[in-house]
Amino acid sequence: MTRSAHSYPDDALAGVVTAVDWTADGTAVSIVDQTRLPDELVTVELRTVEEVCEAIATLRVRGAPAIGIAGAMGLVAALTPFVDETADRFRWRVAGSAERIGGTRPTAVNLRWALDRLRRRMGDAEDDPRSILAVLHAEATAIRDEDRRMCQRIGENGLPLVPDGARVLTHCNAGALATGGIGTALAPLYLANAAGRRIEVLVDETRPLLQGSRLTAWELQRAGIAVTILTDGMAASLMASGGVDLCMVGADRIAANGDVANKIGTFGVALAAFYHEVPFYVLAPSSTLDLATPDGASIPIEQRAASEVTHFAGRLVAPAGVQVYNPAFDITPASLVTAIVTDRGVFTAPYHFSSDQSSRAAISHP
Amino acid sequence: MTRSAHSYPDDALAGVVTAVDWTADGTAVSIVDQTRLPDELVTVELRTVEEVCEAIATLRVRGAPAIGIAGAMGLVAALTPFVDETADRFRWRVAGSAERIGGTRPTAVNLRWALDRLRRRMGDAEDDPRSILAVLHAEATAIRDEDRRMCQRIGENGLPLVPDGARVLTHCNAGALATGGIGTALAPLYLANAAGRRIEVLVDETRPLLQGSRLTAWELQRAGIAVTILTDGMAASLMASGGVDLCMVGADRIAANGDVANKIGTFGVALAAFYHEVPFYVLAPSSTLDLATPDGASIPIEQRAASEVTHFAGRLVAPAGVQVYNPAFDITPASLVTAIVTDRGVFTAPYHFSSDQSSRAAISHP
Repeated sequence: MTRSAHSYPDDALAGVVTAVDWTADGTAVSIVDQTRLPDELVTVELRTVEEVCEAIATLRVRGAPAIGIAGAMGLVAALTPFVDETADRFRWRVAGSAERIGGTRPTAVNLRWALDRLRRRMGDAEDDPRSILAVLHAEATAIRDEDRRMCQRIGENGLPLVPDGARVLTHCNAGALATGGIGTALAPLYLANAAGRRIEVLVDETRPLLQGSRLTAWELQRAGIAVTILTDGMAASLMASGGVDLCMVGADRIAANGDVANKIGTFGVALAAFYHEVPFYVLAPSSTLDLATPDGASIPIEQRAASEVTHFAGRLVAPAGVQVYNPAFDITPASLVTAIVTDRGVFTAPYHFSSDQSSRAAISHP
Repeated sequence: MTRSAHSYPDDALAGVVTAVDWTADGTAVSIVDQTRLPDELVTVELRTVEEVCEAIATLRVRGAPAIGIAGAMGLVAALTPFVDETADRFRWRVAGSAERIGGTRPTAVNLRWALDRLRRRMGDAEDDPRSILAVLHAEATAIRDEDRRMCQRIGENGLPLVPDGARVLTHCNAGALATGGIGTALAPLYLANAAGRRIEVLVDETRPLLQGSRLTAWELQRAGIAVTILTDGMAASLMASGGVDLCMVGADRIAANGDVANKIGTFGVALAAFYHEVPFYVLAPSSTLDLATPDGASIPIEQRAASEVTHFAGRLVAPAGVQVYNPAFDITPASLVTAIVTDRGVFTAPYHFSSDQSSRAAISHP
């Protein structure tokens, strides 16, 4: 973990789970199998293209940053046994393996971005598989370390928003399990806990896939933070009873005007927070700011499989053949957002994001 | 089914399920076993106190009106084999059996009310078990018929609010399965469908117990009405996309100022409807108006078992030992309610309910 400027001890974050990392010898990827949570903590080692693809496709590893890191590290691990091939054949193998890994989740922008970054670095290596592998290994490690620092900075920027005694409501999982570090929405909570502040986190279960109760509750509880879970429809009632001091959620994409696309259900939390005058904070990497998207209405909303709603743990819980509305995310208007916290700072309305505030913009306008 | 003043054919409501009724020979209670839905439609016959208690306690029959009817009919059915006892012993049996049935769900006001009504009628019978049984049988039938008429009148009062082409969002189950008739919130929808209006019903799944996807979707689909289910967190997003024309929900209790206690999650729907200027209607029997309760803050909110949230179909979906917030219902402030529809009319804000509008008040102030 990156050292921080704060005064908590180095091991204060020891309880925070690491979703993806190298194995001890650096030749394979170690991931927490998120399909086994919260029943049991199982780590899986990925050493082949097939294993990496399977882990990503079946959501053993999930969360945009964690998928990108796992894909990059997984590519390196899968190439390791082939360093005795010719340089040409090895380069061809890099391209082919990256293509197969990138194809597992076509909409995962971070995965494609991480793999492209590795491929571009090949030119910096000598004409030798061992040299190419060393360069790619260093680049995958750099992607991991940058993500850890990004999480840490979001946490430090958000920490002043979390006073001692705060009861914080969150939705879905924007935590350590979704990143290479201490998460995005949960990062200030881990730092507040490490700094000795007594906090309680209220976690929406987040139907249909229950990332809140299965993953967020698990990782916070593991780090010694008090957790209460509730169904998504209970958040408004809890706020009415005075039980929520602030909300912290992540984001999949933030438009230039501050509209936020995040896991379905976020918008309802924001409406309830606005009605009850509870601060509603969005925390995300600056790469999530998309200046090319003027507002939320420009963000296409993907519909997911009906079976996610009609089935639960393999059991049908709705009449056969019923129609289903199952959008992956919703749009929270900027007017309902108290502040947006990124690794580059804390931004408040009116939001007019520029390339200074967006690392995505920095990439596209160098 | 009670004849209505409307011009739809008598069999137009033939597809509507009957949750509770006498068996053909009138000696037992026939209920739809709601724990088997939506997998299969199983009817169960109740003939003993044990069977009646078990059916109520395990939610084979649920919904306040349906429980009251099943309890009253069940008491009569259970008494039937004992008509050769002495009158004294039979009367003692009536009291004892009613006590056992009433004890299965102590908070079910309708159940206690229906059983008390039967016991009070015993004085009208001759001093003979057969005469007592006949009086009780007639009274149980009267409770059923009054409930059917109440549903019908709510439906007729609400029907003008449902235009042709309406897309109506509902929450939980306030339908035929919860009553002796065509439901409360769903009554206008059944009548609109019977009148040939093309409607679509959007059904919140209603965590934690999924009454929306398991029961409401099933009973509407069975009656030939177009149904789409969604998770509770998706309602705000659906309204934002313009997909909801109006909301219709039931009520557990309505305070004198119009605040509404209903299934947890209702408040969030009302907030989203208010934000999107979608009409939000509450439909309930006039007996639900409780003039002794000045406002929503005076209504105690019962917390239910944590396992309803942590488990699903017997499987643990949250970390062991996690705290749970699981209130049975929430309070929707009257300011978010467009109108309250009862069997006595359609009422709009400001709500100042009087005994003319509440059958409960009419009972307590004769």
